[in-house]
Amino acid sequence: MASESYKTAPETSTSWEKEEDRPPVAPPRQPPQSRASAAYFALVDVILRFLLFASALAAVLVMVTSKQTEIVPIPIYPFQAPASAKFNHSPAFIYFVAALSAVGFYSIITCLFSLFALLRPGSCPKVVSHFVIFDVLFLGIVAAATGTAGGVAYIGLKGNSHTGWRKICNIYGEFCRHIGASVAVSLIASILLALLVLFSISSLSKKIPR
Amino acid sequence: MASESYKTAPETSTSWEKEEDRPPVAPPRQPPQSRASAAYFALVDVILRFLLFASALAAVLVMVTSKQTEIVPIPIYPFQAPASAKFNHSPAFIYFVAALSAVGFYSIITCLFSLFALLRPGSCPKVVSHFVIFDVLFLGIVAAATGTAGGVAYIGLKGNSHTGWRKICNIYGEFCRHIGASVAVSLIASILLALLVLFSISSLSKKIPR
Repeated sequence: MASESYKTAPETSTSWEKEEDRPPVAPPRQPPQSRASAAYFALVDVILRFLLFASALAAVLVMVTSKQTEIVPIPIYPFQAPASAKFNHSPAFIYFVAALSAVGFYSIITCLFSLFALLRPGSCPKVVSHFVIFDVLFLGIVAAATGTAGGVAYIGLKGNSHTGWRKICNIYGEFCRHIGASVAVSLIASILLALLVLFSISSLSKKIPR
Repeated sequence: MASESYKTAPETSTSWEKEEDRPPVAPPRQPPQSRASAAYFALVDVILRFLLFASALAAVLVMVTSKQTEIVPIPIYPFQAPASAKFNHSPAFIYFVAALSAVGFYSIITCLFSLFALLRPGSCPKVVSHFVIFDVLFLGIVAAATGTAGGVAYIGLKGNSHTGWRKICNIYGEFCRHIGASVAVSLIASILLALLVLFSISSLSKKIPR
């Protein structure tokens, strides 16, 4: 009985020792497929943010360079005088320039952060994953700015017979083309921001580490 | 010795039997805390969607009931004639009503789905988790509508001396108050949509099952 107990005892202890001797297997924190997905998501993020920066910059530049001076008739007939159309004659366009400048500034900063996260994965995951909150806020701001400038530009293009607001695009054609192009580019910026948000949601729902 | 070994053996076997006798504990697929979080998130989702519906409905109703008729001077002095101000005199306000109607319709449908998901958890997780995509799109649409209507309303309130657009709110005060209230309520709708998107992102990043 004693020998049997001695026989069994070492076996048990060996099995315990073996388990203890095993090198501690760390759980794989990021499988290769997930790493590839993370790199892909980071790359698309950088590209979208760069495009956002480019479109915001283009919209602001086209808007602020829209000044046009024309010789127009003044109330004292038959005299004429030069008159300018500038973006800062309308509060809507001033808001537009402010909003698009802010989003351009934001996009260049986040683009650099995303690029840094792409080149050194896991270096700043907290910061990059929180960009989506500001993306949502800027989506609202840029969409509102696009709508505001577009609404005022439409009155300039077509006028409004009910309120007696005359159209001005028959006189200031170049100015109106600048405004129209700027609003179109800011619409692209809004779409890019919506894509950025949807892309972040997609990466979150697929549980891809950032 | 023998009696001692017999004493100990049954004890060991009993302990093994006890462990085997235990009913097999299935691994909890959803811990209670996670279930509670899911219910909390679903409840807040329903409340936000109901508020969104209420604000969209209020904005549309206030806008479409803004008609005001006033006696205004006509070009042939000294005659006067009644003239109306209606929301459908401006394409900006027509777009506003269309966008807010669409978001109201969308919010009542999603509110019912969310309510169903709250009462019967796991009944339609796929559908509810995909609402966030449309939330982002509607955020853009409603923010743009708010901006458009706000921009045109501001011209009506202040006019624009540079382009010769006269203000109309000194004549149609009631109309302008309706427009202003409607734009303010639609701004609340935009904020609610942004909150819904941020809330979905928060629930996704915390990996809460929907």
